[in-house]
Amino acid sequence: MTFNEVDIVGTGNVASHLIRAFNTAGIEVSCVYARDAAKAADAATTVNARSTTIDEVDHDGPLMIVAVSDDAIGQVSSLLPRTRKVVHTSGSAAMDVLRQEQRGVFYPLQTLTRDVTPDWKVIPFCIEASDEELSDALVQLAGQLSDSVQKISSEQRRYLHVAAVIANNFTNHLYAEAADYLKSHDLSLDLLRPLISETARKVQSAEPHQVQTGPAKRHDTQTINEHLELLKNDPGLRDLYVAITERILKSH
Amino acid sequence: MTFNEVDIVGTGNVASHLIRAFNTAGIEVSCVYARDAAKAADAATTVNARSTTIDEVDHDGPLMIVAVSDDAIGQVSSLLPRTRKVVHTSGSAAMDVLRQEQRGVFYPLQTLTRDVTPDWKVIPFCIEASDEELSDALVQLAGQLSDSVQKISSEQRRYLHVAAVIANNFTNHLYAEAADYLKSHDLSLDLLRPLISETARKVQSAEPHQVQTGPAKRHDTQTINEHLELLKNDPGLRDLYVAITERILKSH
Repeated sequence: MTFNEVDIVGTGNVASHLIRAFNTAGIEVSCVYARDAAKAADAATTVNARSTTIDEVDHDGPLMIVAVSDDAIGQVSSLLPRTRKVVHTSGSAAMDVLRQEQRGVFYPLQTLTRDVTPDWKVIPFCIEASDEELSDALVQLAGQLSDSVQKISSEQRRYLHVAAVIANNFTNHLYAEAADYLKSHDLSLDLLRPLISETARKVQSAEPHQVQTGPAKRHDTQTINEHLELLKNDPGLRDLYVAITERILKSH
Repeated sequence: MTFNEVDIVGTGNVASHLIRAFNTAGIEVSCVYARDAAKAADAATTVNARSTTIDEVDHDGPLMIVAVSDDAIGQVSSLLPRTRKVVHTSGSAAMDVLRQEQRGVFYPLQTLTRDVTPDWKVIPFCIEASDEELSDALVQLAGQLSDSVQKISSEQRRYLHVAAVIANNFTNHLYAEAADYLKSHDLSLDLLRPLISETARKVQSAEPHQVQTGPAKRHDTQTINEHLELLKNDPGLRDLYVAITERILKSH
């Protein structure tokens, strides 16, 4: 089993990016499906694909890639023929949210920004399928887009999602905390933006634990206490400072 | 007052980087001082500068840039003639740690990695001085290295340091937490490295608050509770997850 063409269900951010990526990689996007015919047509036109509404899906055809919001995957799947091979692209939905016998997950682990073409070659793809043959075919398909493809079970994907929240969402929140704190002292986040880049760049080739710096890593209680004093007017942020500092102190 | 040459005190990471940067920018490094004559000679040789030990400093000469560890600045300053213009390069030490009448701060806000030449043009320089004329001259000098130079008082620099710890040290710690958690589930941080890059890249041009994503931002309590369940074997990390999640919930 190999896939030389695919159907895409959805017209959102991930769907649009995948449509373009497959087209660039020479994999034909056969048809784009959506609830809204106009949106489907719009998404399909960029790659000269057919388009139609989701209630007009043939019982036979290529792999269907459902790239819709997590909440909608189950319902969309129930509208698709049981006879089709269907995968979703979600990091958090279980594979078994899909009702088809031959089902799987085709999850690009990246936050995709509209109008910014990602470097697909480095984006990790997490693959899972209801059977070995489909799994291998999905790995082969993802390999046309990316150099980083792994089979990951639904259970592992749950752990991965927790870690992604910590390393991605929580990190962004700390940027926001820093920005607010700077602003309250008439300073701009621009002062820290190069440092933010460099901190993320460093761990691309290093283990984060090995490149940890700062007062907590040095067990520099004098600086830590000075910082707590400087945070006294913002008890919430102060508590967060204490919580993370204690974790660093413990691990170094 | 303009500086066409400088003396450097120190042979560590910041000192070595500054020596090379000044040389590249066409600003002569006149002499490199250190406690250890061999180390001073070694650091000076790359740019054909003179070198000598720190107890042999002339009473007159160019700007002295003291690039030593925070703890050592006061002591080093006390060994230098009171008649010299002296600045330090620290983000956390106050200007008045220096004993010279004409003193200042020349602080490049970046984490410098040995053997990696930084892009000096984008590194913010925080400047402070004991008088306006010296301050202007330091701004002009930093401007030879970087396009991002600002006058920042010692008090502002303290707030800036708190924010840098939050956006840099704490962020790196979250990378380490994610790496440990992944490892305990037989997964590699490699899966998240591209996402880490992208998250830091996004805030280079966006406000962090505006690009926040994830379950806490969506007030998706179902996913949050699933994650807490997945963290039940690691109560410390679970508490941290709760603390940061509560901060995000409050701010969105």
